[in-house]
Amino acid sequence: MTIRLYDLVEAKDRSISPFVWRIKYALAHKGLDFETQPVGFGDIPKLCGGKYKTVPIIEDGAVSMNESLAIADYLDKAYPDRPAIFATPQERAMARFFDGWFGLEIMNRMFAINVLDIHNHARTSDQPYFRQSREARLGGKTLEQFTEGREAKIPELRNALRPMRAALSAAPFLGGDAPSYADYIALGGFIWAGTVCTVPLLAADDKLNDWLARGLDLYNGLGRVELYPLSA
Amino acid sequence: MTIRLYDLVEAKDRSISPFVWRIKYALAHKGLDFETQPVGFGDIPKLCGGKYKTVPIIEDGAVSMNESLAIADYLDKAYPDRPAIFATPQERAMARFFDGWFGLEIMNRMFAINVLDIHNHARTSDQPYFRQSREARLGGKTLEQFTEGREAKIPELRNALRPMRAALSAAPFLGGDAPSYADYIALGGFIWAGTVCTVPLLAADDKLNDWLARGLDLYNGLGRVELYPLSA
Repeated sequence: MTIRLYDLVEAKDRSISPFVWRIKYALAHKGLDFETQPVGFGDIPKLCGGKYKTVPIIEDGAVSMNESLAIADYLDKAYPDRPAIFATPQERAMARFFDGWFGLEIMNRMFAINVLDIHNHARTSDQPYFRQSREARLGGKTLEQFTEGREAKIPELRNALRPMRAALSAAPFLGGDAPSYADYIALGGFIWAGTVCTVPLLAADDKLNDWLARGLDLYNGLGRVELYPLSA
Repeated sequence: MTIRLYDLVEAKDRSISPFVWRIKYALAHKGLDFETQPVGFGDIPKLCGGKYKTVPIIEDGAVSMNESLAIADYLDKAYPDRPAIFATPQERAMARFFDGWFGLEIMNRMFAINVLDIHNHARTSDQPYFRQSREARLGGKTLEQFTEGREAKIPELRNALRPMRAALSAAPFLGGDAPSYADYIALGGFIWAGTVCTVPLLAADDKLNDWLARGLDLYNGLGRVELYPLSA
């Protein structure tokens, strides 16, 4: 049976959830068929009887669930004959460390640069909710005030990416010779940024561009959606 | 046969190499007997026919080598019947990512706080070499100038440790339920700091203290050497 994946999308139906992206990659990693169902921010509370507040949400026959790590665990348990996302408990634990690092040090910085872009690309009907919910986290600033002078934040983002560059100087993927859930986490973040972000985040000569190209090519170009230039 | 591990020590023969510490833990992880041979900075070029410039160095029968990751790989290959340090290529790749992160974001900041302490604890005969080689990296500053006002660097170090706290909020070790090479990398860094550093690096209520206590207790208290307080 085909798994259904609810995907949070912007006005042109491109995903704007880095967390959905990692599950798209996880499903492809396991070689499982899936269909995506595009939804807006306002639709999420109406899905699956209102059980979930965030995407990704999957439906697999009678099973439904959200939270990307729980979904990855489910897929490994339900489809043990397919390639493992986490082959050992240590792989899972280290992916969790990577997730924390990438969220705290990288995605938070991307958010500070692209949050107004997300708003501007969201469906018109989602924009008031998006603005209100995000501005509530910004200590009284509007999205415009928060992102004013955002170019000045780019060098710090590039600097924060040094540990990824160090790992990728020794291997083509964060997982080594083959991509791992850590790669999917990071790819999801960069695709999320590139979907909306009108300023390039990486320098043209950043070695991460090579990894990014390899990643976007995976699984028949799964990540080759329309993106703003990620480097310049 | 007992493996010999050359250990870089200070005046009281306590190790001052975070890289040797991770190999002590790796050897204990594999349940291999080893004896440490304490050496000073000036002794390293005289060992093993002058082949190596850095510790850790191991001698295992006719085999000798340095570089901690190469040693870990060797131990897994030479002793496949013992618990694996890296059970899968992905575990190794993610340990490498962790190593890059810990070096760039944590040990560099520890170094900026404790480099004069290392000097002051080193064997008298090693102090001139240590000062000269480290000051060459400090853009013309003396160790004293470089560490002046070092307390001001502690908040940034504590902030940089957030990804470790995030991972350790979900599991007792970075490796999950059991310690991994990432734990040994981080333990080595904290033991290195605690051996010499006369200012506490962590707040008293830092959750990392619990992990640190668990880590120091591993393998019959391998890390329970005389340390300055790591938190206050």
